[in-house]
Amino acid sequence: MTTAPPGDLFHVYDTTLRDGAQQEGLNLSVADKLTIARQIDGLGVGFIEGGWPGANPKDTEFFRRACEELKLEHAQLAAFGATRRAGMKAADDPLIAALRDSGAGVVTLVAKSHDRHVELALRTTLEENLAMVRDTVSHLRAEGQRVFLDAEHFFDGYRANRAYALEVLRAAFEAGADVAALCDTNGGMLPDWVADVVNDVVETTGVRVGIHCHNDTGCAVASTLAAVDAGATHVQGTLNGYGERTGNADLVSVVANLELKLGRQVLPEGLLRDATRIAHAVADVTNVPPASRQPYVGTSAFAHKAGLHASAIKVDPNLYQHMDPEGVGNDMRLLVSDMAGRASIELKGRELGFELEPELVKRVTQRVKTLESNGYTFEAADASFELMLLEEVEGVRPSYFDTESWRVITETRPGEEAVSEATVKLRAGGARIVTIGEGNGPVNALDHALRQAIQQLYPEIVKFELIDYKVRILDQGHGTDAITRVLIETTDGSGSWVTVGVGHNVIEASWMALLDSLTFGLRRHGA
Amino acid sequence: MTTAPPGDLFHVYDTTLRDGAQQEGLNLSVADKLTIARQIDGLGVGFIEGGWPGANPKDTEFFRRACEELKLEHAQLAAFGATRRAGMKAADDPLIAALRDSGAGVVTLVAKSHDRHVELALRTTLEENLAMVRDTVSHLRAEGQRVFLDAEHFFDGYRANRAYALEVLRAAFEAGADVAALCDTNGGMLPDWVADVVNDVVETTGVRVGIHCHNDTGCAVASTLAAVDAGATHVQGTLNGYGERTGNADLVSVVANLELKLGRQVLPEGLLRDATRIAHAVADVTNVPPASRQPYVGTSAFAHKAGLHASAIKVDPNLYQHMDPEGVGNDMRLLVSDMAGRASIELKGRELGFELEPELVKRVTQRVKTLESNGYTFEAADASFELMLLEEVEGVRPSYFDTESWRVITETRPGEEAVSEATVKLRAGGARIVTIGEGNGPVNALDHALRQAIQQLYPEIVKFELIDYKVRILDQGHGTDAITRVLIETTDGSGSWVTVGVGHNVIEASWMALLDSLTFGLRRHGA
Repeated sequence: MTTAPPGDLFHVYDTTLRDGAQQEGLNLSVADKLTIARQIDGLGVGFIEGGWPGANPKDTEFFRRACEELKLEHAQLAAFGATRRAGMKAADDPLIAALRDSGAGVVTLVAKSHDRHVELALRTTLEENLAMVRDTVSHLRAEGQRVFLDAEHFFDGYRANRAYALEVLRAAFEAGADVAALCDTNGGMLPDWVADVVNDVVETTGVRVGIHCHNDTGCAVASTLAAVDAGATHVQGTLNGYGERTGNADLVSVVANLELKLGRQVLPEGLLRDATRIAHAVADVTNVPPASRQPYVGTSAFAHKAGLHASAIKVDPNLYQHMDPEGVGNDMRLLVSDMAGRASIELKGRELGFELEPELVKRVTQRVKTLESNGYTFEAADASFELMLLEEVEGVRPSYFDTESWRVITETRPGEEAVSEATVKLRAGGARIVTIGEGNGPVNALDHALRQAIQQLYPEIVKFELIDYKVRILDQGHGTDAITRVLIETTDGSGSWVTVGVGHNVIEASWMALLDSLTFGLRRHGA
Repeated sequence: MTTAPPGDLFHVYDTTLRDGAQQEGLNLSVADKLTIARQIDGLGVGFIEGGWPGANPKDTEFFRRACEELKLEHAQLAAFGATRRAGMKAADDPLIAALRDSGAGVVTLVAKSHDRHVELALRTTLEENLAMVRDTVSHLRAEGQRVFLDAEHFFDGYRANRAYALEVLRAAFEAGADVAALCDTNGGMLPDWVADVVNDVVETTGVRVGIHCHNDTGCAVASTLAAVDAGATHVQGTLNGYGERTGNADLVSVVANLELKLGRQVLPEGLLRDATRIAHAVADVTNVPPASRQPYVGTSAFAHKAGLHASAIKVDPNLYQHMDPEGVGNDMRLLVSDMAGRASIELKGRELGFELEPELVKRVTQRVKTLESNGYTFEAADASFELMLLEEVEGVRPSYFDTESWRVITETRPGEEAVSEATVKLRAGGARIVTIGEGNGPVNALDHALRQAIQQLYPEIVKFELIDYKVRILDQGHGTDAITRVLIETTDGSGSWVTVGVGHNVIEASWMALLDSLTFGLRRHGA
C-alpha cells in the first residue's frame, strides 16, 4: 500500500508530456521529455504524467530512463494507461503489466464514463466497462500501486446518463482509486456547468474529485477554477496550455490564479516565481514559439505602452497592473523583450560562479536586452551567456582561433543524394590554416572543416559531439527571408552545453553557434 | 435624439481598432483599419469602435474616410474619447468637439471610476471628476449624440470605494448615457468577482451595464459570460483577442459561447458561420500569425490526432467534438499521424474528395507508415499528403518541371554578412532552363532561383509567398549529422498550405518541401 505524500491535500498534476504532446505539430523525443520533466519538477508540481508505457515504445523508454536519470525533487511520475481490455483478466493484460512495471509512483487509468462511448468506441457493454474499471483498479492496488482515474468524456456522459457516469466513479473508488479526475474531453463545457456537475458528484458520491479541462470554449482556466470552488482538490493541466485542438488548461494560469488571486498555496512556497523562466525553457524544447500574450508568463503580459500613463506608473505601478509580476518571475520592464531582469542576471552569474558588481550587472543586463531584442535567447543557451559574461568580466571574449572566412556548397546531381562541402580559412597557433570538410549537410560540413583545422592544436575536441541542433524562425510571416535562431547542444561525454547563433542566414547563425560551442568546450577543458 | 437601432436589446461591441490596436507590435494604417472594419461588419456586430478622433491624427483620418468610403451593413461606428478636461467647459473642449464631428453614431466616453486614479492620474478632485462626466455626457446628448460610458478600472475602483464608483455611473446615466461598460482595465478579475459586482451594479443603480474584460488571468471570455449572466447586455471584445498585455476578450469566442452554448442570438442569424474566415482575414491584415489553438476559429480547433478514435469518429463525429465546426465556418480535420489507422486515412481521403477503395486505403496507410518511420509527418503537411494520395490514385505524381540539378553556395568574408547564391537547372515546357538566385540564406536563394526558372511558364507563382519555415532535427543524439525535417507554409493570398521534406541534408529537405509547395500551389491554381 502506498501512502499519500505530504502535501497531498491538493494535487497539481501536469500532463504536458502526455496530453500536451497531442498538440498538432508537437513531437517530443525521449530526451526532450526528460528535459521538460526536469523543468516542470522545478515548478514544484506534485505529479508529472509521463506518457503511456506499453502502448508507445517511446513512452516505455521514457519511464525506463526517467527512473535511472531523473532525480525529481518535488514531483512523482504518473503512468497513463487504459483499463484492461474487455473479456480479459487485468492480471493477464500486458498493457496493465507495463503500467505497473513503469516504476511510476502513480498509475492514472483512463476509463469511459459516457455510455455511448462505451458502446460505440469501446464496443462493449456498460456492465463489462464497470467490471473493467473495478478489476483494473483492484489489481493495481493489490500490486501496491497508487491509482488515479481519468473519467473520459465525463461531462457529456453525465448529461447523457448521470446514473451510469456516477456508477463508473463509484466502481473506481470502491476498488481503491484515490482521485477521479472528471475530464471535459471535448472541451465544450462552460464554468457554471462544470461547477454544477462537480458539486453534484462531490455531494452524491463522496469521491475525491479532480478536474481536466480543454480550452475549446476559451474557458479552460475558468472552468478549472470553478471546479475547485465546487470541491475539486486535484487540477490537471499542461505547460503553456499545450494540447490537442485548442489545448488543455494552462497549468501556470490555473496555479497563479489559485495562489495569487484566491490565496490557496498549492505549490511549495516561492516556486511560482520561476514560472516564467520554466514556461519559456519548455517552449525552447518543444520548439513551439511562446505566445507573447500568454497570461502571467507571456513576454507582453506586463508590458505597458507607457505614454499616457508613464508618470502614474512611476507613482504607483499597481495602479496599472493587476499584480506584481515578480510573483510569477515576470517583469514589468519586459517590454523590450528581455527575460533579463537584473535579479536574474545576478542569479545566473552566481550560478556560473561569478559575484557580479552592481555596475557590471547593469551593463550585462543592458547587453542581454539588446541581444535579445535582436533575436538571441540566453535562457536556453547558458554556454553562450557564460562566454558573454566572461567577455564583460575579463574584458575580452575567450578565443582560440581567428576566422578569416568560410564557404559552404551544397549540391545535388540527378539520382544522387545532396552533398555539402565547406572551406574554412582561419589563424590558430600562429599559422594560417585552410581546410575542407564534407558532410551530409552544410553545418555538418562546416563542423568537419573547423575540427580538422584546429584538431592538431586542440586534440580534446575529438570528444566533442553535436547532439542537438534546433532552428527557429523568429519573425513569422516572412518565411525563408526571416531572422533565424540556431541552438546547438554539444557534449563531451561527461556533460553538455547549449550555444546560440542568430542571423538572417541560417548557415551564418549556425556558424556562430558552432564557434561558441567549440570555444566553450575548449575553455571547459582548460585549453 | 438618436433612437436605438433594431436589435438594441443586446450589444456586441467591437474594439479591435482601438483597444485591440494597443497590442505590442501591432501597427495599423488607416487603410488597414478600413479593411478590418469591413470584415468585422461582415460578422454582424452592432458597434465598431474606430479609435480616438482628435487625439490621434490617424484616427481622425479614419473617421473621415470611414464616413465617405465604408458602407457598413450591420455596425455603427463608435468614436472613443475622454470626458472634458478638468476646469474647462465641455462645449469649449476641442477634443469633445472632435468626437461630435467624427460622424460616428455613438460616442464612447472613457471616465475614471477609481478614486485613486482620479487623484493620482487625473490629478483632480472626486467632485470635479463627477462634474466632468455629467457635463460631457449632457453636452453630447444635447448635440444629438448617443453616448456610452467606459468606466475605466471599474472593478478595482469598486473595491476601493464602492460608493464613488457607483456615483460615477449614476452621473453618466442621469446625464443621458445609454450604457455603462464596466472595464476590468488591469485584467485581474475572476469570473465570480465580475458576476458579483455586475449583479450589485444592476440592482443598486438600474443603469444598463456593459462589460469590457482583459485576459490577464486567462479568464476574459468566462468573465464576460459571467457578467452577461449577472445582467450585462453589452459585451466588448476584439477580433482574435488582440489587445495590450494579454489581450482583450476574444469577441468570436464570447459570441460563439453565447449563441451556440447558451442559445442567445446576439448576431444576425447565420453570420457566425463566417467567423473563421473573418478572423483569418483580419489576421492577414494585422500580420499577426493566427494562433492555431484559438478557440472556435483556430486551424487546430477541430483537428483530431487520435488514430485510436478514428473508427469511432467515422461512426459519429459528435462523440469527439463539442459542436459542429460549420457553426463557426471551421472544419473538422483529421491529422494523419504515425498512430493513424486505415480508418483515418479513409476519412482523410474523403475530406480531400476521394472515395478510396479498401485496397488503396491499405496501400496508402502502409506508405504513410513507412514514410513516417523515415521522418515524414503528414499531420502538419496536408499538401504533401494530398500530392502523395494523388500519386497513388492517379498512378503519377503531379509535376510541372523536371529538376536536373541544383547547387547553393553560402560564404562569408571578413566583416561582411554571409550571402547565399543558388543555381538551378531544370526542364520545363520543353526547354532546359538554368537560373541563378541570390538570397539571405540558402533556401531563400534556392526559392528565388526556382521561381525565376518557371515564372514565365507559370506566372501564378508570383502570388505564392513562403510564410513559415520550420526545421526539426529528428534523431537527437546525432546533431548536425541527423535526419532533418523541414516544414514550409505557403500562401497565395486566399489560403495557405504546408509541405514537408526530409533528409540528412537540411538544404535537400528544404528543396523537397519547396518543390511540393510549388507543385501543390500550381495544381490548386489549375496549372
